[in-house]
Amino acid sequence: MTERSSACVEAFRDLQDDICRELERLDGGGRFREDAWERPGGGGGRSRVLSGDLIEKGGVNFSAVHGTLSEAAGKSLGTGAGAFLATGVSIVLHPHSPRVPIIHMNVRYFELDGDAGRRWWFGGGIDLTPHYVDPGLAARFHRGLRAVCAAHPRTARYDAYKAQADRYFYLPHRDETRGVGGIFFDRLTEPDFPSAFAFTRAVGESFVDLYAEQVAATRHSAYGPAEETWQRLRRGRYVEFNLVWDRGTRFGLETDGRTESILMSMPPRADWVYAHEPAAGSPEEATSAWLRQGVDWVGLAD
Amino acid sequence: MTERSSACVEAFRDLQDDICRELERLDGGGRFREDAWERPGGGGGRSRVLSGDLIEKGGVNFSAVHGTLSEAAGKSLGTGAGAFLATGVSIVLHPHSPRVPIIHMNVRYFELDGDAGRRWWFGGGIDLTPHYVDPGLAARFHRGLRAVCAAHPRTARYDAYKAQADRYFYLPHRDETRGVGGIFFDRLTEPDFPSAFAFTRAVGESFVDLYAEQVAATRHSAYGPAEETWQRLRRGRYVEFNLVWDRGTRFGLETDGRTESILMSMPPRADWVYAHEPAAGSPEEATSAWLRQGVDWVGLAD
Repeated sequence: MTERSSACVEAFRDLQDDICRELERLDGGGRFREDAWERPGGGGGRSRVLSGDLIEKGGVNFSAVHGTLSEAAGKSLGTGAGAFLATGVSIVLHPHSPRVPIIHMNVRYFELDGDAGRRWWFGGGIDLTPHYVDPGLAARFHRGLRAVCAAHPRTARYDAYKAQADRYFYLPHRDETRGVGGIFFDRLTEPDFPSAFAFTRAVGESFVDLYAEQVAATRHSAYGPAEETWQRLRRGRYVEFNLVWDRGTRFGLETDGRTESILMSMPPRADWVYAHEPAAGSPEEATSAWLRQGVDWVGLAD
Repeated sequence: MTERSSACVEAFRDLQDDICRELERLDGGGRFREDAWERPGGGGGRSRVLSGDLIEKGGVNFSAVHGTLSEAAGKSLGTGAGAFLATGVSIVLHPHSPRVPIIHMNVRYFELDGDAGRRWWFGGGIDLTPHYVDPGLAARFHRGLRAVCAAHPRTARYDAYKAQADRYFYLPHRDETRGVGGIFFDRLTEPDFPSAFAFTRAVGESFVDLYAEQVAATRHSAYGPAEETWQRLRRGRYVEFNLVWDRGTRFGLETDGRTESILMSMPPRADWVYAHEPAAGSPEEATSAWLRQGVDWVGLAD
């Protein structure tokens, strides 16, 4: 392991600890249960799951795996074969209340020693999937992400990362976005390792505060069976995105990753109704109308 | 349209009518609702869905689409580009009771006029996904399929098609089969068009009787919340297979097919529980143990 990669592994492991501690506080009642696992080819991880007062099903996964990248996998990554290390933290939280958004966060570091020398990059993102879109709350979320990027001006560009999240968290077969987006970045090397590392850590460290703001504004809002029905339909779309389109999920399942850690992102329960259409003028219809690419959330609220 | 392709279109349209009529009788209370749809590039279909007394969510889809196969699509099919026609019937039925199996059936015909001349083939299959595996009932199902194949000895080979279903209806990331399998065949041209057509129709025509036998043996069996919980978990695996591995579903979603018709196969409700393990010695554990490739169901019962 290089000095750089051990610094990343250590930082991400600490990040998982910090986030789990803070999420337990935010939840109020739940405690994480941990499964430590090893990867036959090298490395391993710590999968942590929680079912509590706020979060119905949440997972915070840390992994640091290494080994040999096959020609096929190297081709699909565009890197060629070689010795690789990949480490990161991945989170998906499904709250009990349909008023509280689903959230996802991922930060990762990848390093490869191949024929063409050593390559490395960071990647990551945070995106928010409200069952009911509140444009003001979406704007607060995006303003927070913009501030994280603005604090790292040599590395990060909110506008570009926001546009990339719009493109990535999108279901072509539904012609809708997964939620209100967020930021997404990949193959980040600019301007140098320390700056890209610092920004990626900052994204991870911003996660709980950004979610806590959403939770505070929504956790006491009333709901009933109609809102829970809609939540299960929106969770069905979450399943569709993750299993059909999410590159990380598919890569993991196709390359024999640890299934239970990869599918921690699944909601506890999801429904499918043939050709469901929200009633005209309903809040559900309003939410559907917001699920499109290119909404300038920050601009809406400025 | 060639004489052959119009014969197939007509036969499959009639098959949908017959099956829907018989399924309504089997269900007892439900009636199919139909959506007729057109494909912008050519052709269309009739999607029919039912929610009744026996079937909680069922879909019987007929389609006959034609147009130009792109170079990319032709490459993925291994045929090259050209003018194509594809027609078929697809069915998935999710029953209310966890005692009654999920069933899937598909028959299809494909024709292409390309640079290398005209090509055509039939494909199809039936497979059974019990929430609780009863080996005797699985054997009856397979015996029925073997009899359908045996009645078409110039075309069909039960052993080969059974093995192909084992390979196809398999979740590598779970190392388990979707259910107890059935038969699966593709690119069928042997020994000639009339024989292959006759066999494919016979598969479609056998469907309701095969399912009715399963239903008769299970629909009056008692169940409670524990069985319903297990049913939702098994339905989650059904979702995973269809969205991650099923080639038809993925091809449809990636090539802008009619989403609601493709996803008629989704269960009404599915659950995911992190790292769920059935209790030792439970019927659920026994079912999990049966979900493997290569079980000689017919031999078990002979």
